[in-house]
Amino acid sequence: MYEIIDKKKNGLELTDQEIKWVIKSLTSKKIHEYQMTALLMAIFLNGMTVAETAALTDAMLYSGKTVTFDGKNVIDKHSTGGIGDKASFILAPIAAACGVKVPMIAGRGLGFTGGTVDKVESIKGFKTDLGLDKFESLLNKNGQVLIGQTKEIAPADRIIYALRDVTATIDSIPLITASIMSKKLAEGANGIVMDIKVGSGAFMKKKAGAKKLAKSILGTADRFKKPSVALLTNMNQPLGNSVGNSLEIIESVEVLKGKGPKDITEISLALSAWMIKLAGVEKTYNKALARAKKALKDGSALKKFEELIKAQGGQTKFIKDYSALPVAKNKHIVKAPKDGYIKSFKCDEIGLLCTELGGGRKVKTDKVDFGVGFVFAKKVSDKVKKGDEIFTIYYNKGQEDVVEYIENRFFKDVIKFSKTKVEKPQTIYEIIEGKTC
Amino acid sequence: MYEIIDKKKNGLELTDQEIKWVIKSLTSKKIHEYQMTALLMAIFLNGMTVAETAALTDAMLYSGKTVTFDGKNVIDKHSTGGIGDKASFILAPIAAACGVKVPMIAGRGLGFTGGTVDKVESIKGFKTDLGLDKFESLLNKNGQVLIGQTKEIAPADRIIYALRDVTATIDSIPLITASIMSKKLAEGANGIVMDIKVGSGAFMKKKAGAKKLAKSILGTADRFKKPSVALLTNMNQPLGNSVGNSLEIIESVEVLKGKGPKDITEISLALSAWMIKLAGVEKTYNKALARAKKALKDGSALKKFEELIKAQGGQTKFIKDYSALPVAKNKHIVKAPKDGYIKSFKCDEIGLLCTELGGGRKVKTDKVDFGVGFVFAKKVSDKVKKGDEIFTIYYNKGQEDVVEYIENRFFKDVIKFSKTKVEKPQTIYEIIEGKTC
Repeated sequence: MYEIIDKKKNGLELTDQEIKWVIKSLTSKKIHEYQMTALLMAIFLNGMTVAETAALTDAMLYSGKTVTFDGKNVIDKHSTGGIGDKASFILAPIAAACGVKVPMIAGRGLGFTGGTVDKVESIKGFKTDLGLDKFESLLNKNGQVLIGQTKEIAPADRIIYALRDVTATIDSIPLITASIMSKKLAEGANGIVMDIKVGSGAFMKKKAGAKKLAKSILGTADRFKKPSVALLTNMNQPLGNSVGNSLEIIESVEVLKGKGPKDITEISLALSAWMIKLAGVEKTYNKALARAKKALKDGSALKKFEELIKAQGGQTKFIKDYSALPVAKNKHIVKAPKDGYIKSFKCDEIGLLCTELGGGRKVKTDKVDFGVGFVFAKKVSDKVKKGDEIFTIYYNKGQEDVVEYIENRFFKDVIKFSKTKVEKPQTIYEIIEGKTC
Repeated sequence: MYEIIDKKKNGLELTDQEIKWVIKSLTSKKIHEYQMTALLMAIFLNGMTVAETAALTDAMLYSGKTVTFDGKNVIDKHSTGGIGDKASFILAPIAAACGVKVPMIAGRGLGFTGGTVDKVESIKGFKTDLGLDKFESLLNKNGQVLIGQTKEIAPADRIIYALRDVTATIDSIPLITASIMSKKLAEGANGIVMDIKVGSGAFMKKKAGAKKLAKSILGTADRFKKPSVALLTNMNQPLGNSVGNSLEIIESVEVLKGKGPKDITEISLALSAWMIKLAGVEKTYNKALARAKKALKDGSALKKFEELIKAQGGQTKFIKDYSALPVAKNKHIVKAPKDGYIKSFKCDEIGLLCTELGGGRKVKTDKVDFGVGFVFAKKVSDKVKKGDEIFTIYYNKGQEDVVEYIENRFFKDVIKFSKTKVEKPQTIYEIIEGKTC
């Protein structure tokens, strides 16, 4: 281990054997955590080549159980995380309705980001702890399944992630790449569509960093001969209008009914179209997009969503009657203090304010309140008049103080107005295809 | 701790408060070792400013007990370590004979380098575990004292060193600086003379690295308003002729008797002269050097050496009769295989071969054999004829195999010959004075 740390510290390339040895020794506790963190910091500062990243991915992937499916049509999407991102609930049914198999292993929320597992658990009865056997059989049966992270998949990733979390080495492109790709490959994905968020509500604040991450992930996918594509998308404001667990499920159903906000509809269609293309269902992106749109329009995607909920024990009444979801009873409307145009949001702050209300976790052991959250009436570039609703806060009785705090913080730290017209922001900035694509 | 690691990882300067907090939390076990090693690697790769290094020195210095002496004449020497370096045994009596107080806290050998404590323990009865009270009283009484490292001095350094040792972060200039300076200041030194070895038998293989270390140490000493000087000296061949514990004690006495090899005599005189100057005993280096030479010539240094041994319980018979030292009984003479000039030695290999014989430690728990070692008859630039003695191996009965192995390795990996004349190497390359000097 000493020699491996020394090599990386001096900026040299580690061999496949050395990387495999590290991961094997780490999971069998033959090397010390304090040696691993030194190596992680050296990797953070000196980087890794694509070959090293692929070797790390490979070693982490085989540190636990792996699932394999027949056929090339198993495609997963991964988002780097943002505010109001409910795309999984929309794109999976669309893609599955078009013949793609979508194996989703999702996470819980922490800090400013929400978690897909938390959101779906606001549906009464929905189970996410199914085990890998059920995961496999449901995917084969319905072409879609959504479970929480399991200890059997890539255990080395969990050990490494916990160490990165306390040593400021989370934001390392090769380490992020290996973490994502090892899990996706272990869960049986044959291709990957990346939604890399860019902006104030994302982990990547700038396009340059997002592009680097895209290239690292696509390069690694290429090494494994897996088709891949990355979409760089706008995270300078919430995706869609709703932020909060139940509220986001409602909005997802609205999109599946063809009545959702434009930005989340656009992104969900684009991502599912890429999944359809990568699966080989359609030859071109345009044909795939047309097919995705059709699945949305003819109601087959919504039907698939209902099937997903039922298959995992969830009650589906809420699809017709949103009051079956545990939405908080009290509403407070936040109004514009002056005339103008909305110039920008500090989007991560919106996530933190939702956590303040109980909609997310400050620490891992926090319980999440499914009912609270925000619904935005106005977004960036919208014209507002003094007194117009900007957004509504959904809260519980007794949280009046928190609501007041949120409103104050919102005007102090989150929103900026402009006297002059503001350009409508793009939703998708750029699309980068892998070589195997 | 997370934020401090993050800051250093991003190349920012840590504040005094942050550095103090880290050291305090580390020694009270409030931060994890795996966080400390990530920080150490970030320090290794991103460096530290002189202000940070001084703050780290200060925090480590006050992590344990500190000793203070009256007067400005307490000066210590520190060597970065080399092969055959017995200068401490010569310069301390010289300096003490000239009115300098020399507080020596020395280490044991490991790997290719020998240790001052091991060497002096080859003298029957000599005690190095005296405790800080005795350390203080002997220094005040005799102006010289030599003890082993104690847990009371700079405990933070011991914790950090153990972590650096297994995470490839030993060779970091700010970390080396803080390690050396915290211990020297804690032991009560008011000034420091650095012997920075450069070459194949040293930690610093090149002059550029040695100069950087010199500047870091002198800069830190300046911050503490302590006079300092650094000598960059040749470590491309053993210092003096002897390598091995008892053998080096004999050579030290030879030097003190005015009969020692030229290089070790020259370096010991230069180092002690700088100590005399830094102590304020003499105003100029030349006057200090004259005084050091006089102490050697008139026997007062040798008398001081005898006093040092007696004061710490050692038998002094060996000074007149070397057979009182446990020198190994068997000798093997290694002879030149051809005519030529000695071009170079791979000097760290000489140390490793001495360890092979039992003269040093492979691992910390090894016992050291005081008797074995080498005495060189020829050094770099010397002309040799086929069959001339190059060096003698002192070994124990039963070590014939090791002796054969050493001779083979010596000709394979250590010595290089030249057919043409080789220039006599310099002993002292450069002298750099601190600003407070």
